Amino acid sequence: GKNGGHLASNLGVVELTIALHRCFDSPHDAIIFDVSHQCYAHKILTGRYEEFSTLRTHGGISGFTRRSESEHDYFNNGHASTSISQGLGLLLAWQLAGRNDKVVSVIGDGALTGGLAFEALSHAGQLNKNLIVILNDNQMSISRNTGALSRYLSSLSMSKFYQRLKTIVERTFPDRPDASTKFGHAIAKIKRGIKGMFLSNNIFTDLGFDYVGPLDGHSFYSLEKVLKKVRNVNHPVVVHVRTKKGKGYSPAENDPALFHGIGPFQISDGKFEKFDALSFTEVFSNAIKSAAAENQKICGITAAMARGTGLDSFSRKFPERFFDVGIAEEHALTFASGLAAGGMIPVVCIYSTFIQRSIDQIIHDVALPCFHVVIVLDRSGIVAGDGSTHQGIFDISLLRPVPNLTIMCPESAASLEASLRFACSLDSPVVIRYPKLSCPADIPSFSSPLEKGRGLLVPSSELFPSLTERKNEGSELLFVCTGGVFAETREAAAVLAAENVRSDIYSLRFIKPLDEEYFLSVCSKYKAVVFVEDGVRTGGISEELYRILLENNPSLARKAGIKAFPDKFLAHGKRSEIFEDNSMSPRDIALFALELAGKK
Amino acid sequence: GKNGGHLASNLGVVELTIALHRCFDSPHDAIIFDVSHQCYAHKILTGRYEEFSTLRTHGGISGFTRRSESEHDYFNNGHASTSISQGLGLLLAWQLAGRNDKVVSVIGDGALTGGLAFEALSHAGQLNKNLIVILNDNQMSISRNTGALSRYLSSLSMSKFYQRLKTIVERTFPDRPDASTKFGHAIAKIKRGIKGMFLSNNIFTDLGFDYVGPLDGHSFYSLEKVLKKVRNVNHPVVVHVRTKKGKGYSPAENDPALFHGIGPFQISDGKFEKFDALSFTEVFSNAIKSAAAENQKICGITAAMARGTGLDSFSRKFPERFFDVGIAEEHALTFASGLAAGGMIPVVCIYSTFIQRSIDQIIHDVALPCFHVVIVLDRSGIVAGDGSTHQGIFDISLLRPVPNLTIMCPESAASLEASLRFACSLDSPVVIRYPKLSCPADIPSFSSPLEKGRGLLVPSSELFPSLTERKNEGSELLFVCTGGVFAETREAAAVLAAENVRSDIYSLRFIKPLDEEYFLSVCSKYKAVVFVEDGVRTGGISEELYRILLENNPSLARKAGIKAFPDKFLAHGKRSEIFEDNSMSPRDIALFALELAGKK
Repeated sequence: GKNGGHLASNLGVVELTIALHRCFDSPHDAIIFDVSHQCYAHKILTGRYEEFSTLRTHGGISGFTRRSESEHDYFNNGHASTSISQGLGLLLAWQLAGRNDKVVSVIGDGALTGGLAFEALSHAGQLNKNLIVILNDNQMSISRNTGALSRYLSSLSMSKFYQRLKTIVERTFPDRPDASTKFGHAIAKIKRGIKGMFLSNNIFTDLGFDYVGPLDGHSFYSLEKVLKKVRNVNHPVVVHVRTKKGKGYSPAENDPALFHGIGPFQISDGKFEKFDALSFTEVFSNAIKSAAAENQKICGITAAMARGTGLDSFSRKFPERFFDVGIAEEHALTFASGLAAGGMIPVVCIYSTFIQRSIDQIIHDVALPCFHVVIVLDRSGIVAGDGSTHQGIFDISLLRPVPNLTIMCPESAASLEASLRFACSLDSPVVIRYPKLSCPADIPSFSSPLEKGRGLLVPSSELFPSLTERKNEGSELLFVCTGGVFAETREAAAVLAAENVRSDIYSLRFIKPLDEEYFLSVCSKYKAVVFVEDGVRTGGISEELYRILLENNPSLARKAGIKAFPDKFLAHGKRSEIFEDNSMSPRDIALFALELAGKK
Repeated sequence: GKNGGHLASNLGVVELTIALHRCFDSPHDAIIFDVSHQCYAHKILTGRYEEFSTLRTHGGISGFTRRSESEHDYFNNGHASTSISQGLGLLLAWQLAGRNDKVVSVIGDGALTGGLAFEALSHAGQLNKNLIVILNDNQMSISRNTGALSRYLSSLSMSKFYQRLKTIVERTFPDRPDASTKFGHAIAKIKRGIKGMFLSNNIFTDLGFDYVGPLDGHSFYSLEKVLKKVRNVNHPVVVHVRTKKGKGYSPAENDPALFHGIGPFQISDGKFEKFDALSFTEVFSNAIKSAAAENQKICGITAAMARGTGLDSFSRKFPERFFDVGIAEEHALTFASGLAAGGMIPVVCIYSTFIQRSIDQIIHDVALPCFHVVIVLDRSGIVAGDGSTHQGIFDISLLRPVPNLTIMCPESAASLEASLRFACSLDSPVVIRYPKLSCPADIPSFSSPLEKGRGLLVPSSELFPSLTERKNEGSELLFVCTGGVFAETREAAAVLAAENVRSDIYSLRFIKPLDEEYFLSVCSKYKAVVFVEDGVRTGGISEELYRILLENNPSLARKAGIKAFPDKFLAHGKRSEIFEDNSMSPRDIALFALELAGKK
């Protein structure tokens, strides 16, 4: 309640985590949590009880498993569907080294939708090693889980008859008959035959796993009984466990999607503070509904993030044009290319960090045939509490090299609305990126019409009308920023204003294509230029613009510089703390500008 | 035989393609080929018979489906596992527009291993539209298919009993009882119950598809009988067809992996020209065997490309340390991270174009926890006959922004061997990229030891010892190139040499990290610098180095320029033709250099 976090999923796996730690000997055995947002009980049980109150805070423990924190954390997880691949690799490495410890991968039914998990299941079934997969089935991914796989999982049941028969078969025939002998071969065949005749197969047994379940995930008795047996099995096995998200805390049980990832809240009633200012997400949520009301071709696609991306209200208004594909970012994009081929205008909403999963689908399936797909990247730039696995700092560098793409970065509510209208009016793929942040307070400039390839120049006089004494003098200093970092840039300008230094802000709006001449003409009026970007510096837009300046206006370029994120992964903390850690705070930016301008 | 191509897979689907075109009305109905390397019969049947001799040649028709060629080609395919997603999107778009035509996705059992295909199956099963999936099962992907899914497919069979029972059930009860009425609901329940009791489920029916098969893919009779029925089904269906790769041409039937993708060959006996010069692939193939013999920790991983990547001989020598994960590039990397967590040194060999599938796995699973995984990118840079979907021109731009990565680009056999040794000696992730090309003829410089972050300076005197008359004069011109384009750069230097202009070549060897000071000191001795890169210019290494030059040596930078590939997708042709198309031919490079140096 104090720090917020992934509450519902953690409450759902308390008993399961305790049972796993009782039946397996971590860290000699490895317990790998998929996504690992559900690792809180695991952290408390493995030496991090004292530090638990620092969860997700700057310098405190992460909300996910982190190798640097504990030898009980084998992987730095955060994205979905990795744990079976990781577990299989780890198990094989250990067996190649002659080590006989156990590996357990704990994966939710949501993460199981991801193709990566299926690729791993198929490989694991082939290799036939004793990988133990715990399927934590809460019929949810982040919102209620959909997809045929999910429907299928809920249909699975193990009848008493099956149970009894299985026991008889197992008792009658040796566990792993030596198939190299004729007798062993015959026994194995008979066993398979009997099983095949009477026992229903399922998708896991089809892929070569044994299957146990579904178990009550809140019953220590049944969990431990099965886990102790499963520990000694010598082939891959899926243990299907049913759990309830939010278990034991009624506000979370009643609205598990809301309590999936939540900020600080009052424990007594689950209430939390609401912000008045509209967020970019809310603005988008409204804008796509307006767009879809006007244009029957517009569809909305999410990968299990209907609420997070603001598409939930779209889904209620236009259910026939809404598609939640589950945690399947690759399919989301390729499916969208199919919709586009059929004449629709799909708007695919994915968090920046998860679009990393769809790079080839964007290149090969969308951009190459130049389909009109609109890709909306929420949570681009800095993502506070989730930390290194979730920062949206790579999208600009990853997408700039892709031909045929238009990339936009609105700085305001008005600009986001205009960007979406513009994107829907094109006939080629478009990316719109914005941060998890409130929109800046409205000023008239924000409503200036979009011009392809050009940004918006916001003069100091509009930002700080109180700074009147030298109103007719122009600013000497120009900030050039991506939309996601307009807030910090404006604060930097405010720091300067407080010292009576005027600075204007050029919000890029377009990352690709660029009207270079216009950019150069804007810059030419200033004596110093500072680029500010909420992404990694390498391959970013600031480096490109800086190079253009170096080539075309070398004297100005000598008084130009870049503030972007360095070549490293960024840990969790408040947004402002992460900016400070990387000398990107408004004060840092302001000081950098003063130095460049030769004023300090 | 004249042009080469994907022979074996095309011979395998001749009957299937004819049957599809007889039973469906293309282009009103859409036939979507996954990967689409098996589309030759489709092309011949859809108006491209006359042009067929231009297959895969410059300006001729592509070896894959291309929207620009024909309205019968709905997608520009090339990468695997996309067709179900594409088909589902297209079908939904048509149905939203009130159009009732059919959509057929033809996918091989190899491509079905890819997680994207599974994501799409799960979504299609949920949506319950009449998507028709033809599973072209030849028990192969590119080499013999492995994985539990493949084993499972071969176990599927449809007994006569099942067939008969199914017919009885279907006849007795109406096809789609209206489940909203009580009676309809009861009927649906009974039907499901009977089916459930007597009919064996499989992985496709589990996901909500109907399943028919396996059929003989070379029998027109059984194909057309089933396809005509399936046309009118109103829910998703998988038609499982067994085919034989290379059917009808004995050299291809006998070695389908060899004839998967092949250059020109003699039709009479299937013989083809062999090149004497060692290719980069062959050098790697030998180098990894030596490395693995010395170091027990080294593992080899391929995604269904054992032969293409040269890992096939490794697999025979070290079977327990070799893993073919099937067409599953995402899993390949995450699985490797697991092996690394367990202390092994996995060497993952993937074509540059397919690594686009694993960008998130490299960022999130490998680089963030800084696991020692070696990623070997074969076919980086220009890939001749396959064209736009297969060019390896994005890897530098996509990987440069990833923290913790080392990226290398050897220019020669000796340098590739040294790179692999160096990569295995580190304790962090490394990428080694090289082209599909013969290694350049050996010169002493190539054996110069690797120095981290530094390249190799090859003096003109070593490249052209005959150019003796001004031996003691230094060169005025420096080429800075990635290893993959050393050959063209050397040719450009030869063009200049023929005009008595000396130029040296600095082969970068390292793309990341960079010893900037060393680079600047090398450049400082020249009067002009030309960067040559076998990747897209945007976000590439040349732009970075050029910027460094602009910042630190502006007078030299005024005589510097970049030759890299432009911001577009590149069609097929011979390597030299693709270079010419983009004014990257040795002559273009030489002329560009002369202009920069002010000599022309």
